[in-house]
Amino acid sequence: MEMKAYLSELGRAVDGCLAECLRSPGVPFALLEAMEYSLLAGGKRLRPALCLVWAELFGARRDDILPAAAALECIHTYSLIHDDLPAMDNDDLRRGKPSCHKRFGEALAILAGDGLLTEAFGLLLASRAPASQVLLAGQKLVRAAGAAGMVGGQVLDMLWTGQGRTTMDDLSRMQSLKTGLLLQVSCECGAILAGAPESGQQQAATYGLHIGRAFQIVDDILDVVGDTQTLGKPVGSDEDQGKVTYPSLIGIEQSRKAAEAHRDQAIRALDGLIGPQAVFLRQLAAYIVTRAA
Amino acid sequence: MEMKAYLSELGRAVDGCLAECLRSPGVPFALLEAMEYSLLAGGKRLRPALCLVWAELFGARRDDILPAAAALECIHTYSLIHDDLPAMDNDDLRRGKPSCHKRFGEALAILAGDGLLTEAFGLLLASRAPASQVLLAGQKLVRAAGAAGMVGGQVLDMLWTGQGRTTMDDLSRMQSLKTGLLLQVSCECGAILAGAPESGQQQAATYGLHIGRAFQIVDDILDVVGDTQTLGKPVGSDEDQGKVTYPSLIGIEQSRKAAEAHRDQAIRALDGLIGPQAVFLRQLAAYIVTRAA
Repeated sequence: MEMKAYLSELGRAVDGCLAECLRSPGVPFALLEAMEYSLLAGGKRLRPALCLVWAELFGARRDDILPAAAALECIHTYSLIHDDLPAMDNDDLRRGKPSCHKRFGEALAILAGDGLLTEAFGLLLASRAPASQVLLAGQKLVRAAGAAGMVGGQVLDMLWTGQGRTTMDDLSRMQSLKTGLLLQVSCECGAILAGAPESGQQQAATYGLHIGRAFQIVDDILDVVGDTQTLGKPVGSDEDQGKVTYPSLIGIEQSRKAAEAHRDQAIRALDGLIGPQAVFLRQLAAYIVTRAA
Repeated sequence: MEMKAYLSELGRAVDGCLAECLRSPGVPFALLEAMEYSLLAGGKRLRPALCLVWAELFGARRDDILPAAAALECIHTYSLIHDDLPAMDNDDLRRGKPSCHKRFGEALAILAGDGLLTEAFGLLLASRAPASQVLLAGQKLVRAAGAAGMVGGQVLDMLWTGQGRTTMDDLSRMQSLKTGLLLQVSCECGAILAGAPESGQQQAATYGLHIGRAFQIVDDILDVVGDTQTLGKPVGSDEDQGKVTYPSLIGIEQSRKAAEAHRDQAIRALDGLIGPQAVFLRQLAAYIVTRAA
């Protein structure tokens, strides 16, 4: 199957799961509405897709992994909602629609994020996999999403924005915490939940690390050369906000080369893996570097 | 041992664990500082104590349960930080000190809450107990803290405040979601992690349900008749904010009686349980109703 068709098929499976997963009689309607508004606003479903493909590569059934895959999208969405808040990046637009707080107010947006983060762990813990594998996947997710991961990365981003003293090492560390680790752990969780051997978990981690780096560098590039309509968010916002990015440090051309180098390392991590999932992962690594949105 | 001495001893054990648990080389200092500021600001450590006592009652070693107990305090603290935000209750004072956002700014307060919530699951998942018991405790915690629990309760509180149309059933549901479930699950998690039989888990749940109700009713009463100094927060804030409370619906005297009825039901749930932990739980139920802060 062609990569984009595979990605769409995975996205539809994830969307089906996401549309069901928060609906419980105990959830107040206003909260459900705000959570679903952001969760079902589209998006590439890249993290769930990575989780599913790595799990399928090691023989898991898709249905058994879907809740964990949905959990990763819940975490990603909560982080977007909180990052967009006026006290943070103050973004009015997200995926071409008003951001959660513009639509529902700040209080409900904060709570929708809190709800999505909490429910994400509920979804992950409900994975149909041996308990010890579920626990390990949960611990990896905490590491990637928590104070030494995504939340910590957002703090560094905030502290360093406008300071103008960020080095390449700082930028790489911040982006790794803020975006990279969650992409990496998406791959790892799939492999772990599928019962992959240690070496397979390591391949997933290495692949995820490098596509995470490539993905973020390309994000930086698109913020300079991209198209607002295609991206669904304003171009040039990094520069407006005084953010240090790959292009601002080393220029567009060198940034492209850096992204391509990470793509190559990601593809190298797949050495020895065969089958449609491995083909997909190779094509996805290439796509991440050439994407326009 | 006398109840308060036992509670202090448990509190010290929890404080020791809390002072260590967030320190990882990967956590940015500013974030760690904000998380610890709120986490180590004192407080009764009621939720961790309940978890530890129920676990010890069913034969668990304290050290094995401490991380899970600390997780409950992290969840409680994150909820206080987010509830205090300007977009929510806009409280400047918490436990006698400036609230987290007054001290560190809104962005860092939001992120400190996010970090504590995420790390709480890391602590829980690191419990030294059989994996299936840890998973069950984790699922209960999600239910109590998530969209159909604490987060949902805060949404209802927000939507209903100032509306003046709240009934007794509404109030009871909202308080159960917002405060009750986390106290209940603190007891349940202790029993579950200790490997208590189904009947023991049920006793913990029933006890927790009723002390949760009693606790919240007394909170409402103290907001009317309490002392700002003793409470560490301003008295009368519920009325100022137009919140419906037990005293505003049924008066102080009937509220006291309702709290005492829940105390009695909590104590009844302990029937058949013996030993120092059962004695402590009986005394604690009585203390919750007579406390001044």
